[in-house]
Amino acid sequence: MSITKIAVMGYGVVGSGTVELFYKNKESICKKADRELDIKYILDLRDFPGDPFEDKLTKDFNVILNDDEVQIVAELMGGKTFAYEYTKQLLSKGKSVVTSNKELVAAHGAELLAIAKKNKCNYLFEASVGGGIPIIRPLHQCLVGNKIEKIAGILNGTTNFILTKMIYDQLSFDEALKLAQQLGYAEKDPTADIEGYDACRKICILGSLAFGKHIYPEYVHCSGITRVTLDDVEYADNAGYAIKLIGSVEAEGDKLNAMVCPRLVSKNNMLASVNDVYNAISVTGDGVGEVLFYGRGAGKLATASAVVGDIVDAAKHIGRPIVSLAWEDSSSRDFIIRYKESAVSIYVRITADEVDSYKEEISEMFGYVDFIPRKRRCEKELAFITPKLAEFEIDKRLEQISKKCKIESKIRVL
Amino acid sequence: MSITKIAVMGYGVVGSGTVELFYKNKESICKKADRELDIKYILDLRDFPGDPFEDKLTKDFNVILNDDEVQIVAELMGGKTFAYEYTKQLLSKGKSVVTSNKELVAAHGAELLAIAKKNKCNYLFEASVGGGIPIIRPLHQCLVGNKIEKIAGILNGTTNFILTKMIYDQLSFDEALKLAQQLGYAEKDPTADIEGYDACRKICILGSLAFGKHIYPEYVHCSGITRVTLDDVEYADNAGYAIKLIGSVEAEGDKLNAMVCPRLVSKNNMLASVNDVYNAISVTGDGVGEVLFYGRGAGKLATASAVVGDIVDAAKHIGRPIVSLAWEDSSSRDFIIRYKESAVSIYVRITADEVDSYKEEISEMFGYVDFIPRKRRCEKELAFITPKLAEFEIDKRLEQISKKCKIESKIRVL
Repeated sequence: MSITKIAVMGYGVVGSGTVELFYKNKESICKKADRELDIKYILDLRDFPGDPFEDKLTKDFNVILNDDEVQIVAELMGGKTFAYEYTKQLLSKGKSVVTSNKELVAAHGAELLAIAKKNKCNYLFEASVGGGIPIIRPLHQCLVGNKIEKIAGILNGTTNFILTKMIYDQLSFDEALKLAQQLGYAEKDPTADIEGYDACRKICILGSLAFGKHIYPEYVHCSGITRVTLDDVEYADNAGYAIKLIGSVEAEGDKLNAMVCPRLVSKNNMLASVNDVYNAISVTGDGVGEVLFYGRGAGKLATASAVVGDIVDAAKHIGRPIVSLAWEDSSSRDFIIRYKESAVSIYVRITADEVDSYKEEISEMFGYVDFIPRKRRCEKELAFITPKLAEFEIDKRLEQISKKCKIESKIRVL
Repeated sequence: MSITKIAVMGYGVVGSGTVELFYKNKESICKKADRELDIKYILDLRDFPGDPFEDKLTKDFNVILNDDEVQIVAELMGGKTFAYEYTKQLLSKGKSVVTSNKELVAAHGAELLAIAKKNKCNYLFEASVGGGIPIIRPLHQCLVGNKIEKIAGILNGTTNFILTKMIYDQLSFDEALKLAQQLGYAEKDPTADIEGYDACRKICILGSLAFGKHIYPEYVHCSGITRVTLDDVEYADNAGYAIKLIGSVEAEGDKLNAMVCPRLVSKNNMLASVNDVYNAISVTGDGVGEVLFYGRGAGKLATASAVVGDIVDAAKHIGRPIVSLAWEDSSSRDFIIRYKESAVSIYVRITADEVDSYKEEISEMFGYVDFIPRKRRCEKELAFITPKLAEFEIDKRLEQISKKCKIESKIRVL
């Protein structure tokens, strides 16, 4: 039997994890793949003297590109520059590419999938969302009988860790971020995580696959967790909610509502129980109802698990594109609903002298609101949850309130 | 393009749901399958006058068996008699069979998979475990890079509903069972659910797939929830646990530990948050760590969702067996560990006059035990959790205790 040769590009955390896991379980992997697989090259610009796989290391992308024996390439470099160029060239030559690069899939997925299809190979990206959690394949294979109605997920482990520490250990946002950095969960520049950009890329990938049209990150309203305070966490808790950074995409009529923002998640919802660096993705289909996928959303071997799964699938599908893994490109955001027009409940926290005197007015303004008790409520503070209304309608009413009270926080309810 | 013809055998809940979901989403299903699919026959012995698919109904299995146009058959009849014979005959003719029949897969999976392989067709059973929850395909495809270490799941919705009502509404077991029957969640004869047999079949299927060797239900220690009392539920709650019926299979050395029984599940474990008729399956692999799959474990359209997913996969793999979906047969239980030899912590509730006077003796006997406080503790009652020891060692010590106190309950800790 001929051996299917693989190249790994990028020998960082995920790349070295992939090589490690592949060789650790090679026998059972090849058995289940029903063919011999081996890694021929590892591409990295750095030197790794003494590395057990030193003989496979190369600094020259063209060695991989021009070796006809290499049929599958794992792009684990990240970024949108070299990774983009290399992926296009590899796919154009009919080599399948598997990747953990969410930034690239979110930015160029439609184009890269089309190039793969044209060249009868595959572009697979199970590792780009939720680390090792199986989600891409279940979505387009197991749930193929369903019309997907909604996806909502905790897609970023760093922010979930920070929020968990705020909820359970009463750390402030800044303290929790610092701890996350100390533990290696957050980068020195944590912007992509805490501002929601990372979660945004992931919900774009899931939404594009589920709804068949490329949702570019710039189409999606995105706000992070930097303004969530311990006061909000406590009020939410008292009202039966946990605050989570949620990426969501949902069909509304013939349009989609997509956003990333902190949300009050009811404790009856499984997503509220997802703590620390764990991720979870809830998918609702017209047949299956709600299903949820949970696990470690990042990490060396967890992500490698998804990469290896894709390598095996690519090996099984050499010469045959997986048709269900595809979506159309989009040229404008007009299939995305303007989020202010969408109906939502909002948690609001306001401060003012004698704030209680505004209770009746606020109630009347919204017809009805739920005021939230707080154990050690500051007399100058009031928190409530509005009924479900178009968001711009809520904003109008809050503008009225803001003439008398300071609006400290506004967090949407999931 | 030629049309791939399907037959559905059994027009009950799952059968009619499958037909309904298939025609509801036919266009997108065929697009993702990349071929035209249609249902040609529906087999049932009953008449369905006025049914929209009356023209497809047949009472004669041989019509399906002998129609060369039919390449895929959904066996949704259940049971081990006709379903077994029919499945063997269909597979022997090279027709792929997809099924929700856990009883049949657990009893004859190895044999049926071998027949399928020999005849270059597939035997698929995503719907046999966890209703619509994607679990079979993720296990052998997405997680192919992993050595699976452990599977533990809430695999039966009826018992989980009963336990949920005991935990949250303080219903007794009998009251909760009655309610489940009224709501249609439990059958008139609830034995298979409440005694754990249904969960046992499911853990056998998952374990066989994950560990590569057929685990027959008779190899598995199985006890149900009929002896779980409200007292136990309350003690468990006070100690930070929920009581759940757990099916589990785990590698221990070169053997497997498989069992179905009620367990104390720590509230930090996601499984403790799974309520009502929902199912969840936790899978631990050496790469991915723990991942969990959650959703409605039964129901017409949820199960149909899994069946349709398998139909599409069967259509994509006509003439090509899916090699990773397989396991060897087994001729004896000697790869299953004797469960009494496995180390476990056990929750114990005892009664006696002046029971507190035995506390010290019990502590000394086990080296250390956790006594559980209870709000309204009866003076004659004591509950504690033992340290982790081989179960037969715990039994020996409990035998000592049983000379002085009555042992009311014994529940393993997960």
